[in-house]
Amino acid sequence: MTASNIDVLCIGNAIVDVLARVEDGFVARHGLVKGSMNLIDEERAELLYGDMGQAIEVSGGSAGNTAAGVASFGGKAAYFGKVKQDQLGAIFRHDMRAQGVRFDTPAATDGPATARSFILVTPDGERTMNTYLGACVNFTTADVDKATVEAAQVTYMEGYLWDRPEAKEAFKLAAKIARAAGRKTSITLSDSFCVERHRDSFLDLIRNDIDIVFANESEIKSLYMTQNFDGAMQAIAKDCPIAVLTRSAAGCVVVKGQEIHAAPAYPVNKVVDVTGAGDLFAAGFLFGFTSGRALPECAQLGALAAAEVISHIGARPEINLRAHARAVGFL
Amino acid sequence: MTASNIDVLCIGNAIVDVLARVEDGFVARHGLVKGSMNLIDEERAELLYGDMGQAIEVSGGSAGNTAAGVASFGGKAAYFGKVKQDQLGAIFRHDMRAQGVRFDTPAATDGPATARSFILVTPDGERTMNTYLGACVNFTTADVDKATVEAAQVTYMEGYLWDRPEAKEAFKLAAKIARAAGRKTSITLSDSFCVERHRDSFLDLIRNDIDIVFANESEIKSLYMTQNFDGAMQAIAKDCPIAVLTRSAAGCVVVKGQEIHAAPAYPVNKVVDVTGAGDLFAAGFLFGFTSGRALPECAQLGALAAAEVISHIGARPEINLRAHARAVGFL
Repeated sequence: MTASNIDVLCIGNAIVDVLARVEDGFVARHGLVKGSMNLIDEERAELLYGDMGQAIEVSGGSAGNTAAGVASFGGKAAYFGKVKQDQLGAIFRHDMRAQGVRFDTPAATDGPATARSFILVTPDGERTMNTYLGACVNFTTADVDKATVEAAQVTYMEGYLWDRPEAKEAFKLAAKIARAAGRKTSITLSDSFCVERHRDSFLDLIRNDIDIVFANESEIKSLYMTQNFDGAMQAIAKDCPIAVLTRSAAGCVVVKGQEIHAAPAYPVNKVVDVTGAGDLFAAGFLFGFTSGRALPECAQLGALAAAEVISHIGARPEINLRAHARAVGFL
Repeated sequence: MTASNIDVLCIGNAIVDVLARVEDGFVARHGLVKGSMNLIDEERAELLYGDMGQAIEVSGGSAGNTAAGVASFGGKAAYFGKVKQDQLGAIFRHDMRAQGVRFDTPAATDGPATARSFILVTPDGERTMNTYLGACVNFTTADVDKATVEAAQVTYMEGYLWDRPEAKEAFKLAAKIARAAGRKTSITLSDSFCVERHRDSFLDLIRNDIDIVFANESEIKSLYMTQNFDGAMQAIAKDCPIAVLTRSAAGCVVVKGQEIHAAPAYPVNKVVDVTGAGDLFAAGFLFGFTSGRALPECAQLGALAAAEVISHIGARPEINLRAHARAVGFL
């Protein structure tokens, strides 16, 4: 194993978020379930966008947000994901690199446009996502740069990749390369319905190829088909070396075999937009982990980053997380 | 004169704002003067963008912001401006229409991309703008739809248009059509350096073709080459039927011949980003004016809209201004 020059490599769907505030009625009128993530086609995207109010555009994508978060903490982050060679693709690449993330996956020169997620933020701060995957469908094993995976302490992947067979293969290839190089692998389960779609396959992956699982309460319950959180926690403790289970305002639990560490959420004045909460939790945790901190400290950093991102619109940090963590005595 | 079915028609450069927070050092390092508006070419745009941190994209453009503001107050607004048929152009059109603004100027199918303004917001809330005009160079007299101008109570134009000869001609044509139809014309002087570039020509236009001038303190002083605000105010009173002179936190003065109405600014908790302050002041004022309100009431609505837009990032209202104005008893 050679020296690592990347702390965290994140792999995911490269998406530009199109965010607008809406009333609850808008979500209902479009037959959407508040808080859900929906995959939509281009026609549905146009229909929805046509009915949405004025929006703002911000680079997003679950693992992309995590990479930006790691870099904001001062960690060395890299990213694999597929944009098209178009204006939104250029914006996505700029924002990634501007945050200090290494991002060299070539853009697609033809096929669908750069992916967009139409995110409806209701007055309660909840977000309902409608994702048009666009150019992400062109992400394949050819985009998994072996040297980069080998150079990363942790390769972290979003479960959403599983929705496309080619991306799933790329994900599995990356995990294999990482493990062969003596590196750690990590996955976020992304969404309870994503778990539902891929339960057996996720379980198989976790049991064989993953070192650190991130999941929120509904995702981990879905994985083990139980309504009992403790039951799910006991099960994941047997299936994966480390599990990080987030529970919104109730904080999180980090499980490592027999060790269980509960950590509180970081206080937030007003929840403005929960988009990116899980992504930034993972960023703080993985930054802590790859800089050799103890698990409770990793959880503390995750909670801090999640609190920052839900206090404003958009899923990427608006402030420097390293300076923020230092100011509150966490670094 | 037939019945008007548009309250305010706004004409301007159709621009997508690319906003990022920067430290004062960034502005200095790029040889920029804080608070200025700079016209840049594509090469300079790429250089600047490459050095900027992660940004957000929001539809902007001075007169575009005003149109959005009028519509947010519940006024009937229309807009003329040129985007290209590209992703940013589609975003601009969507945001305009989503706010209820009528916007039918055809997009350019070739030539430069949709305009962008790289807006650097410093910690004091000041903004430094760097505008790549892109597709705006294709805005010409052919884009001045006669029927729309004739249907609008007020045709409002941004001084920035004067920077391109073709746009200037379009501006003059629109003023001529409006006046011939018995409608009112209005201009914002946009920027004191824009005034400097076009002083004689602006004065000539104002004296002959304009009913309502909007200017801030530095713009009106520049127009008459004086450091004395009262002197400038006396001069504009002779040159134009109505002048609306804004003075930031010191409020505004509305001058109509011998009538002078001073109005206070509306209080703001924290100035986050001053981008759009003048544009939204004009929106509130013109909404009031076209709905038959007295000048002090128009000024009050302008102050309210300006206060809203400087309390957040981005130059368009984040809340419904009609509801806001009602809540505070202004409507």
